[in-house]
Amino acid sequence: MPKVPHALREIVYQANLRLARSGLVTGTFGNVSAVDRDAGVFVIKPSGVPYEDVTPERTVAVSLETGETIDSDLRPSSDAPTHLAIYRAFDCGGVVHTHSEYATTLAQARLPVRCMGTTHADYFHGDVPVTRPMTREEVETAYEANTGLVIVETFTARGLSPVEIPAVLVANHGPFAWGPDAFTAIEHAEVLEYLAAIEFKVRLVAPDAPRPDAFLVDKHYLRKHGPAAYYGQRRTRT
Amino acid sequence: MPKVPHALREIVYQANLRLARSGLVTGTFGNVSAVDRDAGVFVIKPSGVPYEDVTPERTVAVSLETGETIDSDLRPSSDAPTHLAIYRAFDCGGVVHTHSEYATTLAQARLPVRCMGTTHADYFHGDVPVTRPMTREEVETAYEANTGLVIVETFTARGLSPVEIPAVLVANHGPFAWGPDAFTAIEHAEVLEYLAAIEFKVRLVAPDAPRPDAFLVDKHYLRKHGPAAYYGQRRTRT
Amino acid sequence: MPKVPHALREIVYQANLRLARSGLVTGTFGNVSAVDRDAGVFVIKPSGVPYEDVTPERTVAVSLETGETIDSDLRPSSDAPTHLAIYRAFDCGGVVHTHSEYATTLAQARLPVRCMGTTHADYFHGDVPVTRPMTREEVETAYEANTGLVIVETFTARGLSPVEIPAVLVANHGPFAWGPDAFTAIEHAEVLEYLAAIEFKVRLVAPDAPRPDAFLVDKHYLRKHGPAAYYGQRRTRT
Amino acid sequence: MPKVPHALREIVYQANLRLARSGLVTGTFGNVSAVDRDAGVFVIKPSGVPYEDVTPERTVAVSLETGETIDSDLRPSSDAPTHLAIYRAFDCGGVVHTHSEYATTLAQARLPVRCMGTTHADYFHGDVPVTRPMTREEVETAYEANTGLVIVETFTARGLSPVEIPAVLVANHGPFAWGPDAFTAIEHAEVLEYLAAIEFKVRLVAPDAPRPDAFLVDKHYLRKHGPAAYYGQRRTRT
Repeated sequence: MPKVPHALREIVYQANLRLARSGLVTGTFGNVSAVDRDAGVFVIKPSGVPYEDVTPERTVAVSLETGETIDSDLRPSSDAPTHLAIYRAFDCGGVVHTHSEYATTLAQARLPVRCMGTTHADYFHGDVPVTRPMTREEVETAYEANTGLVIVETFTARGLSPVEIPAVLVANHGPFAWGPDAFTAIEHAEVLEYLAAIEFKVRLVAPDAPRPDAFLVDKHYLRKHGPAAYYGQRRTRT
Repeated sequence: MPKVPHALREIVYQANLRLARSGLVTGTFGNVSAVDRDAGVFVIKPSGVPYEDVTPERTVAVSLETGETIDSDLRPSSDAPTHLAIYRAFDCGGVVHTHSEYATTLAQARLPVRCMGTTHADYFHGDVPVTRPMTREEVETAYEANTGLVIVETFTARGLSPVEIPAVLVANHGPFAWGPDAFTAIEHAEVLEYLAAIEFKVRLVAPDAPRPDAFLVDKHYLRKHGPAAYYGQRRTRT
Repeated sequence: MPKVPHALREIVYQANLRLARSGLVTGTFGNVSAVDRDAGVFVIKPSGVPYEDVTPERTVAVSLETGETIDSDLRPSSDAPTHLAIYRAFDCGGVVHTHSEYATTLAQARLPVRCMGTTHADYFHGDVPVTRPMTREEVETAYEANTGLVIVETFTARGLSPVEIPAVLVANHGPFAWGPDAFTAIEHAEVLEYLAAIEFKVRLVAPDAPRPDAFLVDKHYLRKHGPAAYYGQRRTRT
Repeated sequence: MPKVPHALREIVYQANLRLARSGLVTGTFGNVSAVDRDAGVFVIKPSGVPYEDVTPERTVAVSLETGETIDSDLRPSSDAPTHLAIYRAFDCGGVVHTHSEYATTLAQARLPVRCMGTTHADYFHGDVPVTRPMTREEVETAYEANTGLVIVETFTARGLSPVEIPAVLVANHGPFAWGPDAFTAIEHAEVLEYLAAIEFKVRLVAPDAPRPDAFLVDKHYLRKHGPAAYYGQRRTRT
């Protein structure tokens, strides 16, 4: 059985605190996890426990190989199998699920968060897609695992990069976001909500507004990401 | 005359504090009550008193049998007869009335809060209905009691379960919610407002968006409610 | 020259503090005043002074008879002549002007705040009207006084009661509200903003929604106002 | 090489604190700068540094003449060349860039913030324009400098006054605002966001609403600005 690094529990505990303060979750909705690929485990919030009652010790570890809970009397978040499927398929270190208002609105409307401006392009290199609806069989058997598989399919079938577009809207459900670590995943979920709020408003006030040119989108994405990035302090001594 | 348990007053006092902090009420609008069916009484906020001036002793008790105020110089909330009608007809321990913004918007628009996603289905097993308009006679005679009867009729005439759908929009008025206790009633009112905000937005941005499949709605409702529930920690030792 | 009661300055100072905290004003926009009809004066915020720098001594008194500033080095709010016209024509003790977001939206759209529900009827006995646009002459000569006269005309020409409908939207400008005292005027402005937010949303989501029946509106207005009122604790010992 | 006045760094530090608290920025988006034209420098936030980590010493100075960073290991905000172009062309002492929600919505919708009311006219003497989209060449070479040149072109080509209209929406990007100093620039950005929120709502609820008469707009602008201004305390002893 894999050994669970205490530092990973601490990270997930801190990330849950930040998620609870982010305004992205209502009640006990929402969860965040982080993975240690060397240890072969990810750690996630316990199911249905109020954010204020979570401690590092009460986080729940899950095996990346078997998907089973490791050494815990508490159940992991019911969405743990969705996180597992994402960790198995995507290159990321943290995953977060919220029910933030505007992203959930677009998920229920089955509309993507289109890339309509430079703020979007600073974080997501293209539209944030919405999944297809799940089938009866996918829902009635291993629902949460299948949610993850439908997320993965959304990227593979459409040739999208989960590194360049680190978020998705699950149809009639809500957003999932990921990133190199749990805190960046939350940052992506926060920016996604901001972008969804603007996208919602643009659709209402100017449904036929032209998209930004591709060279503008590329410029913004590439000045923050990849080998030619020049945003921030990464190349200078601070 | 029924004896009023002090614990019931304390619960209603605490529930009023939580309601006042919830953001669901403006000024002195809104009220919450809790029932003790063995004692034959429910306790409610006094009418028109600012939330900060309510104490356990100043809450007002009402007889479930007669509808009369028990041993108090203060009047109960003017909506007390509505609460009474709900307690008499529905299996619940707490009732709350708010004028929260989006739920009131839909009540004025005479539109139900449709079940358009999994967050809705986690709490309400179907659309949250809107009542029919009240008649002149219902308004001019025993208005508040008739408001309660029209709420009850909305469920009985349409074959809806007040346990599976613990809230309603009163046409041109606003939402009422209930639950096994006063705090859960408030939680239902909070979630209802969140859902109404999303439903409002979905209607604007995608008026023809398809509803989620029934099997998805059932999956989410039943994984949190009923004998097959597996959300939260109810089946494991914590 | 009229003598200015210090208590009146204190009231206006306190009312300005409450207004600043209400969320109804942005920057130095907005002002509140109170009248002492026996003393023949009203007191108002000084023009362009940040809310945090207002003290009772720095409030500015204006003569009800002449409209002139009384014994002050500071100028009164530039809207003082509007307040004066309202005090001269309407039975009220306090006046407030804000640029609150939804009420200003409807003022710019030249749309009244229609009475679409019971919350509206609890405070305003009918639609809150919007003034006609002002003429070039009214704007170029004694603009602020004419703003007040156009407000008064809105009520007199349409046979509306400024006691039963204690607020107005000035076309392409924003809301004014009044009441028996300055604090109630602010309460009216707060409720007006809440109602304008809902009215805005109802117009978007259900532009043809039917109005509530007149008997429902009357029921709500009259259970809180007038000789048959039974809301609150006014008739019982507290 | 120009000498950088410490007071200028202190101003920019304080202005960044105010910007961070304004609600206009998300994450590290947004930046504010101030110029000392005698010293030949402007000072701006370092690129990608969280607002809480900025100190006066960590602000970055840029030469007005050469556009080069002066004596700093940190990079200036990547938008520094945009600020530079604005300082070179417009009569102003501070510049701010935000991604505030409603202004960004209109920028993405390529819609100006029309002057629809007196609140707008109190600050901006006409519509706040939106730039033309940038060409591929402008984006791919010296993008940030060209953003500034397109802003300047928007005013010169249309004969607009950057003093009377101290803000712009960059198409598919977001708002820039300026003013006589950095704090006034932020105030302009705050008022612009408020006006954009109302303009968005007016477009939805009353797309054909008539504009206010020009004499009303002039009245409001000129009572606060220019030789005939009478708003505030500027002409009396305080």
